[in-house]
Amino acid sequence: MAILNRCSVLILCGGLLSFPSSADEGLWTFDNPPVKLIQEKYHFTLTKEWLDHVRLSSVRLNDGGSGSFISPHGLLLTNHHVARGQLQKSSTAEHDYIQNGFYAATPDQEIKSPDLEVDVLMSTEDVTARVEAATRNAQNPEQQFAERKKIIAAIERESLDKTGLRSDVIALYQGGEYWLYRYKKYTDIRIVFAPEQQTAFFGGDPDNFTYPRYDLDMALLRVYENGQPIHSANYLKWNPKGAPDGDLVFVSGNPGSTERLDTVSQIEYQRDTAFPNLLNILRHRIEALQKFSATSEEHARQAASQIFNLQNSVKAIDGEEKGLKDPHVMDTKRADEEKFKAAVTQNPQLKSEYGNGWDEIAEAERKAATRAKEVYYHGVDSSLANLAATIVEYVAEIKKPDGERLPGFHDAQLDSLRFQLFSPAPIYKQMETARMTGALLLDLSEAGAGDAFVRTVLDGRTPHDAAVATIEPTKLDDPALRKQLIEGGEAAVAASADPEIVLARKLDPIRREMIKWQEDNVQSVEQRAGEKLGKARFAVYGRSTYPDATFTLRLSYGTIKGYPMNGTIAPPKTTLYGLYDRAAGFNYQAPFNLAARWREAAHTLDLATPINFVTDNDIIGGNSGSPVIDKNGEIVGLIFDGNIESLVGDFIFDGETNRAVAVHTAAMTEALRKLYGAQKLIDEMLGN
Amino acid sequence: MAILNRCSVLILCGGLLSFPSSADEGLWTFDNPPVKLIQEKYHFTLTKEWLDHVRLSSVRLNDGGSGSFISPHGLLLTNHHVARGQLQKSSTAEHDYIQNGFYAATPDQEIKSPDLEVDVLMSTEDVTARVEAATRNAQNPEQQFAERKKIIAAIERESLDKTGLRSDVIALYQGGEYWLYRYKKYTDIRIVFAPEQQTAFFGGDPDNFTYPRYDLDMALLRVYENGQPIHSANYLKWNPKGAPDGDLVFVSGNPGSTERLDTVSQIEYQRDTAFPNLLNILRHRIEALQKFSATSEEHARQAASQIFNLQNSVKAIDGEEKGLKDPHVMDTKRADEEKFKAAVTQNPQLKSEYGNGWDEIAEAERKAATRAKEVYYHGVDSSLANLAATIVEYVAEIKKPDGERLPGFHDAQLDSLRFQLFSPAPIYKQMETARMTGALLLDLSEAGAGDAFVRTVLDGRTPHDAAVATIEPTKLDDPALRKQLIEGGEAAVAASADPEIVLARKLDPIRREMIKWQEDNVQSVEQRAGEKLGKARFAVYGRSTYPDATFTLRLSYGTIKGYPMNGTIAPPKTTLYGLYDRAAGFNYQAPFNLAARWREAAHTLDLATPINFVTDNDIIGGNSGSPVIDKNGEIVGLIFDGNIESLVGDFIFDGETNRAVAVHTAAMTEALRKLYGAQKLIDEMLGN
Repeated sequence: MAILNRCSVLILCGGLLSFPSSADEGLWTFDNPPVKLIQEKYHFTLTKEWLDHVRLSSVRLNDGGSGSFISPHGLLLTNHHVARGQLQKSSTAEHDYIQNGFYAATPDQEIKSPDLEVDVLMSTEDVTARVEAATRNAQNPEQQFAERKKIIAAIERESLDKTGLRSDVIALYQGGEYWLYRYKKYTDIRIVFAPEQQTAFFGGDPDNFTYPRYDLDMALLRVYENGQPIHSANYLKWNPKGAPDGDLVFVSGNPGSTERLDTVSQIEYQRDTAFPNLLNILRHRIEALQKFSATSEEHARQAASQIFNLQNSVKAIDGEEKGLKDPHVMDTKRADEEKFKAAVTQNPQLKSEYGNGWDEIAEAERKAATRAKEVYYHGVDSSLANLAATIVEYVAEIKKPDGERLPGFHDAQLDSLRFQLFSPAPIYKQMETARMTGALLLDLSEAGAGDAFVRTVLDGRTPHDAAVATIEPTKLDDPALRKQLIEGGEAAVAASADPEIVLARKLDPIRREMIKWQEDNVQSVEQRAGEKLGKARFAVYGRSTYPDATFTLRLSYGTIKGYPMNGTIAPPKTTLYGLYDRAAGFNYQAPFNLAARWREAAHTLDLATPINFVTDNDIIGGNSGSPVIDKNGEIVGLIFDGNIESLVGDFIFDGETNRAVAVHTAAMTEALRKLYGAQKLIDEMLGN
Repeated sequence: MAILNRCSVLILCGGLLSFPSSADEGLWTFDNPPVKLIQEKYHFTLTKEWLDHVRLSSVRLNDGGSGSFISPHGLLLTNHHVARGQLQKSSTAEHDYIQNGFYAATPDQEIKSPDLEVDVLMSTEDVTARVEAATRNAQNPEQQFAERKKIIAAIERESLDKTGLRSDVIALYQGGEYWLYRYKKYTDIRIVFAPEQQTAFFGGDPDNFTYPRYDLDMALLRVYENGQPIHSANYLKWNPKGAPDGDLVFVSGNPGSTERLDTVSQIEYQRDTAFPNLLNILRHRIEALQKFSATSEEHARQAASQIFNLQNSVKAIDGEEKGLKDPHVMDTKRADEEKFKAAVTQNPQLKSEYGNGWDEIAEAERKAATRAKEVYYHGVDSSLANLAATIVEYVAEIKKPDGERLPGFHDAQLDSLRFQLFSPAPIYKQMETARMTGALLLDLSEAGAGDAFVRTVLDGRTPHDAAVATIEPTKLDDPALRKQLIEGGEAAVAASADPEIVLARKLDPIRREMIKWQEDNVQSVEQRAGEKLGKARFAVYGRSTYPDATFTLRLSYGTIKGYPMNGTIAPPKTTLYGLYDRAAGFNYQAPFNLAARWREAAHTLDLATPINFVTDNDIIGGNSGSPVIDKNGEIVGLIFDGNIESLVGDFIFDGETNRAVAVHTAAMTEALRKLYGAQKLIDEMLGN
């Protein structure tokens, strides 16, 4: 497990330029795959048909992961840890699908997920020229920023009107290019199968982001439209044998974000400001939830998914931070930048047009650091408070012209936003209180009692009293009230006496001031300077490269292979034997315990069945749930993690040790058939 | 496998002082075990009876390892990799006991090993006062060195005459103390059981010095005296269940050498001079033997053990070198030394007596470096040449008064030396030629054509021609000729026209000059300064500590427990499941292939049987074959390796990650019984 898109857990997305690639590196867009490179190295030709089929068989899940269709009847494979949020939201004290797993033996038993959206990339279009034309005459970064927002909103709106498809304009190559991505969007997604958490996440937090592994981190969903499963030829054929070691394989998925082309000053900001503060926040959140969990079994059940996600983020960020503290990594980064800078400086025209990009970004980072405490410690860690804040913003934003709204409130995005806002997923008030109390305690100690945000939230009360006073009486846990407020608009929100809305109204100006300040002082400067460096990079290194990850569809290639590990070599794959070895080695103590059916029916299994394997494909958080595809376009595995050596992959790709970790199709087949009585699903996948 | 005493492979033994201990650190002498510490931490009292029984059940093997008696009939357990040399020497092209393993179902099938000596420590005696009295009035280091040699030889001789026991005087605590160790010596050792190399050393060089592991690195020998198995109550009771995780366990064995109390200048010499040169030599030797191996299957068989030992040394030294290049390790060493130095300097008396110890050693290291090329590149890597050199030295040395002889030629040592000299073990001339050619090529390129040694050996010929000219015509591969020369004394050696003896006579003065120069300029200074620092350490830190390892019997304590590893945690134990997992994960490719009986009879095994486990006992090369003993004095495991994190243990002990790796008694029992048909041995071990 583990490589959830970090952006879905905390706002951390950057997304700048790209590298001249080496090894099997690269998060390639489907518009610009390295056809020649793969042809030369692997003697395999990526055809348009192959690419189209893979693209249309791949999906993005709004919970932060990826997936793929594996039957003509909308059967969708992703990771358990991607589907985990939906399993949690569908569970109750009586039916704990996380702990016990779930299998819908018949269609009517499939569970509708409350707020999962699945997107299929239908088409892409280069709109760089339109964006540039609209921003060319701006007088300063702030004005350029506003113009860029405006034209992007217009393009998205226009596309939505014309096609009815979800339409997003994204910046690639650090703003060197802008692209319109159109998605077919599905919101009726049902849960078909999930193993026990213990089986999906065997080894727990210790084994997370490591290899060798023994996790059946899979879940099966089904995509419906108009009350019926969709029918489509765009699915990946199930290959229960997997691919041989050393074979060329592809990963098609949605890597969340990479910062491989950040400037050194940006990386230093991450290392010295962002990561330490994020780790501090995450660890406090985990502590608060663990305290809450200890109060009852039902509380533990409620908090489990959150703790899981937070621990995942801590391990990822901790690994990234350690990577950045490795002098070798920073030395490499500095040397790369010096080389690039020298190439720009040597050319008078490049120098005059782009040469000050680095200094401008460094200045923006310095400014950002001055208000870091406010950025990181104005959090309330409450779903209810976040819903309230969004409602207060919503009613104000939609009155503005589309192009002037805050991010997330453009016309083309409102459908998806409302789907989230009106989610019927349960909200547990006692957990909300525990979370908010913990967050306010941290805000108080870090931002200080004099901070405007802290003063407003606490209003003279203790963190606990402030949390209780807002959470206990609010009715915002009822989606009907949220709908009513959104439909009632500004008047309804202004008139509401609900304590969450009251608080959100008070905090709104503080948030807006912060957003504005960041846009004016950091984002607009970073964007403009980023575009300069993006263009400079094109000029120096050409265009045969890939953009940093942006949680959009990418293709990576590589082979199944082991790697040097801790004094020896890690095997290309693990088997069910290893699952039983690791469990026994820890005396079956959690998190190395086995689910009952795995203990009891071990003798029915072929223990030599491969369960996990590693490839040197370039992946990153967000690729969770991506299919591993062989040359024939068949699915041979399911990406669910990266190894510990891959964590610094956000900044630098080391083909020697960076590995993607996948669930093998053989183990999925063996387990579905022999342990879960799901032969019917196997038949569907195999087209029997 | 892996922790053969490095001293047995290359002369590298140092052996200085000791640490104020922390964690479960310490290589304790049986005279001074940490009774109070263990009582306080583990509530277990080491009694004299317990210690005596364990000491008398423990043995040292002259091949560089340790072992223990496990039955009243002289049955001795050690590692396969310790017994490997004897297995190799007893094998032929027709009977390859390395590849196929060996089991003597009846006593008459037991194979007598050609040159294995086993020593049991019978008594120890502090002789510091006698050594100090004899050296107190020396005028300079050289004279002190000579006087020390003289008194030590006298004490050893006197003890031998009185007791008939092998008698060695050893320096502990960097010369702070001198002890007389008396051993009961056995030289009729027979091979009873060995698994296939592939089973003992599963995972090969990659897995060597790592964990998790799955090796049945065991061999059973039987100790005879007067043609009969010995009978003794001094053996360890076989505990086929092993000890539970977290339980207190002891290791009794002979750690070869540690340099934990080397000065920083000595460690820097190791890092910058010794290790790079040793690695260079070892890698060249491996290359030469691998080339030789490629020429035929029989050559491969002949060279296998040597390659094995050399690769083991490379991995160990490489790990140590990497450890010393870790700034944290050297910073810790520097800080420790500064602290110690400050404590000495603050006290005027200590300062005047001992304060210049560090500078004297640093000066000796500087001098040593000036002739490093000669030290490291005067090697011929030929068993025949080494035998010849020893014979030439022998006849000259024994004419001198005992106290003035070169090390190894004192009266008390001659028995053991002759046992080695007259070994009937086969010597393969083609392999000798390959080794010598390789060594001379390296000498030529490193020491240069003008070097006296190189000039003498080559005498105008190419390395290959020089090797052939000495090795092909020599008769020294016949032990009878060696005996004849030794018995004929100086006259016989002077008259010999055997080309190996002729060459050895020519090289003798060059070797002697080098030895003398080292004694006068390095060893004598290091010894005198070492004694100063040893005494200073007693004065500053007291005596509740342990001496650096000296390949003499030590006791270490600790518990069975996992450790943080590569982003996750390593389990306290592994099981047979894991063996099959790792084999399958690498598609059964060497070195991860399984011996036939393991493939074919897998279904008869209880795969949950533990095979290896880790403890935080402090061990080092030479501890190979040591028993792991529980509180009841029963044997629960067999030390065979350290993890990769332990390699820097030569210089610094980190209780957090440093682990000893042992074979579990359960797997030895399961395999002997179910796979090797050796129920009879199990019955003997269990006293049935």
